Amino acid sequence: MSEDYKSMWESLELDLKAHDALLEVLGKGYQDIYLAQKNRPEGMGYFDFVMSEVHGLRIRELLDEKAAGQKVIGSFCVFVPEEIVRAADAILVGLCAGADFAGEEVEKLLPRNTCSLIKSAFGFKLGKVCPYIESADMIVGENTCDGKKKSYEILKDLVPNLYVMDLPQVKSAEGRALLKAEFVRFKEAVEKLTGIAIDAKRLKKGIEIVNNKRKAIYRLSSLRKADPPSISGLDALLANQVFFYDNPARFTESVNKICDELEKRIENSEGVFPKETPRLLLSGCPMAVPNWKLPWIIETSGAVIVGEESCVGERGTRNLTDDSGTTVDELMEAIIDRYFQVDCAIFTPNPDRLDHIVEMVEKYQANGVIHYGLQFCQPYLMESMPVEKALEAKNIPTLRIDTDYSMEDVGQLKTRVEAFIEMLK
Amino acid sequence: MSEDYKSMWESLELDLKAHDALLEVLGKGYQDIYLAQKNRPEGMGYFDFVMSEVHGLRIRELLDEKAAGQKVIGSFCVFVPEEIVRAADAILVGLCAGADFAGEEVEKLLPRNTCSLIKSAFGFKLGKVCPYIESADMIVGENTCDGKKKSYEILKDLVPNLYVMDLPQVKSAEGRALLKAEFVRFKEAVEKLTGIAIDAKRLKKGIEIVNNKRKAIYRLSSLRKADPPSISGLDALLANQVFFYDNPARFTESVNKICDELEKRIENSEGVFPKETPRLLLSGCPMAVPNWKLPWIIETSGAVIVGEESCVGERGTRNLTDDSGTTVDELMEAIIDRYFQVDCAIFTPNPDRLDHIVEMVEKYQANGVIHYGLQFCQPYLMESMPVEKALEAKNIPTLRIDTDYSMEDVGQLKTRVEAFIEMLK
Repeated sequence: MSEDYKSMWESLELDLKAHDALLEVLGKGYQDIYLAQKNRPEGMGYFDFVMSEVHGLRIRELLDEKAAGQKVIGSFCVFVPEEIVRAADAILVGLCAGADFAGEEVEKLLPRNTCSLIKSAFGFKLGKVCPYIESADMIVGENTCDGKKKSYEILKDLVPNLYVMDLPQVKSAEGRALLKAEFVRFKEAVEKLTGIAIDAKRLKKGIEIVNNKRKAIYRLSSLRKADPPSISGLDALLANQVFFYDNPARFTESVNKICDELEKRIENSEGVFPKETPRLLLSGCPMAVPNWKLPWIIETSGAVIVGEESCVGERGTRNLTDDSGTTVDELMEAIIDRYFQVDCAIFTPNPDRLDHIVEMVEKYQANGVIHYGLQFCQPYLMESMPVEKALEAKNIPTLRIDTDYSMEDVGQLKTRVEAFIEMLK
Repeated sequence: MSEDYKSMWESLELDLKAHDALLEVLGKGYQDIYLAQKNRPEGMGYFDFVMSEVHGLRIRELLDEKAAGQKVIGSFCVFVPEEIVRAADAILVGLCAGADFAGEEVEKLLPRNTCSLIKSAFGFKLGKVCPYIESADMIVGENTCDGKKKSYEILKDLVPNLYVMDLPQVKSAEGRALLKAEFVRFKEAVEKLTGIAIDAKRLKKGIEIVNNKRKAIYRLSSLRKADPPSISGLDALLANQVFFYDNPARFTESVNKICDELEKRIENSEGVFPKETPRLLLSGCPMAVPNWKLPWIIETSGAVIVGEESCVGERGTRNLTDDSGTTVDELMEAIIDRYFQVDCAIFTPNPDRLDHIVEMVEKYQANGVIHYGLQFCQPYLMESMPVEKALEAKNIPTLRIDTDYSMEDVGQLKTRVEAFIEMLK
């Protein structure tokens, strides 16, 4: 890394030594998991570059944009409406939460029985190794699960700029009214932060930017129907992960470029795995960078992942926002409608999610489903048991995996995954 | 148990063999924990009788009341407004949830990392040993924590009559509107179940019945300020537990009778423990019958419990409902106001709870606080860490205990509790 980055990280008050160690582990992991893959699409070179610069050039860009007057908003959840952020020329970035860090410090603040995702977000903050959270002008927490909801009460003392958004638990009329009130309040907070009044034109532009990202990622998803698969699940997951970090226009363009390449591959029956490789749908908890453990196990065990039913995947990107409205009110209603459809397990009941899993199994011709539950993530773990039963009743083989970010169970998981894949053949 | 009860239990389709085994364990536990106490108030004889008949006479009463046309509503939570139930001449009972039962069956339906309270509710149902749930015409679930919220999706397939009440997570205007909508919906459901239209007179009567129970239990609590303590924490907890089961008028009368006796004891400086016994406040998760493990450990380790900051304690019974309204609307608003004050850890933020703990420490002159967290209960475990810090900052010694319903950790807990009490001397 250049001296330039070093002074940039110093300006963000990162712990340089710890941060160097993190980047080294991250780089090595990326090498072993991503670059070790064979026959990757050339277009993935863009994402390789993005990942190599995820704490470098991308942060430099953010700081330059901040210097030019734009605001950076950090988020932990797909419920934060990016359309509103973009409408105010602000930048939405996902915050670091995909690896264990500063575990001892974290357990002074959070119960040991807290899921890895939440612990990780705290660890990156306490360890001073996340340049995104340090660059953010506003950090948005959201009342999804109990773990996140209650941990924000603790996080608020660690950051100067936490904003908490409430969310409904039921898709009732009152639930929608609550979401609406909270999105209106968020719009006002973004306006206050940026000093920009969000009018219909701006909101339309915000919707367009985000819809374009979504359209590109849908296009990529659709190409995963092909057999042989033209792209690995690991690479597609990476695109879904970078969705949260990258400049949206550049992301859209880069994904579309990969799609052009994949279309040619499909025409030529060219694949990253042989034809008739067992195809799996991943369903459950989100996987933030660099949480690639389970996909890596799966794709080195003789199967390919053809879809992610996850917040870092179709649960997060499904559904465009209707941009046909002409007033702020109409466009805000469209945004609320779009987010109210998200089938997160925090909702009760949550029947849409099962429908979506089945739909994705059919669409991507998956031979089975691996349900990924983060240990201590009560909403997804609770929902996984009826989901498994319902899928099995439809003759869709399902394997439930509950794990965390540690590498201790890799051997055991690999054995279970291999046995499951063997059964599908 | 008489033959009469046997046929009653058969009519409720209980598993008689398992139920006999449960009653035997319960009876032995009660003997060892409750009856082994010295110098108990005579009035506790009433509760000894209630407990000996908790699956017998009390169930006979419920069935007789049902035969006379009354409805029985079962609940797992203090958010279910008893005033509305009583207004329709219906009976509200707490459902069994204080002991491990049918663990293997439970873990087929719920993740292993689920709190004991929820597992227990399922265990009693699956094991067919809870006559209350089998007698209930309506079972009310409520969207409090993730664990309960999501488990009701599974419970609904095990019982024919589950009604789920949504709850807010934030004490905002929208949060109160949601609670209001849900209480109005609940009132309508109770009216439909009972065939009784709830008018102002009925609602006033319902409020009076429940307020009278609360006043009696407040009176008992206030008498716990005395030193030497005139009643043990175990016995006071039992009164708080029976609050959920008993006929309200009889409960009120019996508690007041005990209070008369305690007042005489206090006059005579008579106590169940010596003067200057270290005094502790219990704070945290609720303790349902027969979950007496921690209080028993504490009171056999040289301290007395002088208050319960818990749903089975002052969190559940604090605050009367204003009965001054003259219309259904006014009285419903009073009920909503009363319940919206409950400082459950599902709310974020939840500053009232810390205030109440400090208030209780002062009122009952506690020397320290033991925070009781049920393993995997994320709301209380998360909240326990800032609560502990805030209490320690006010020089209130605090011990955090996270445990479940098993007896495996009794030795270890006793060592920790004894060391904590030793430190207070």
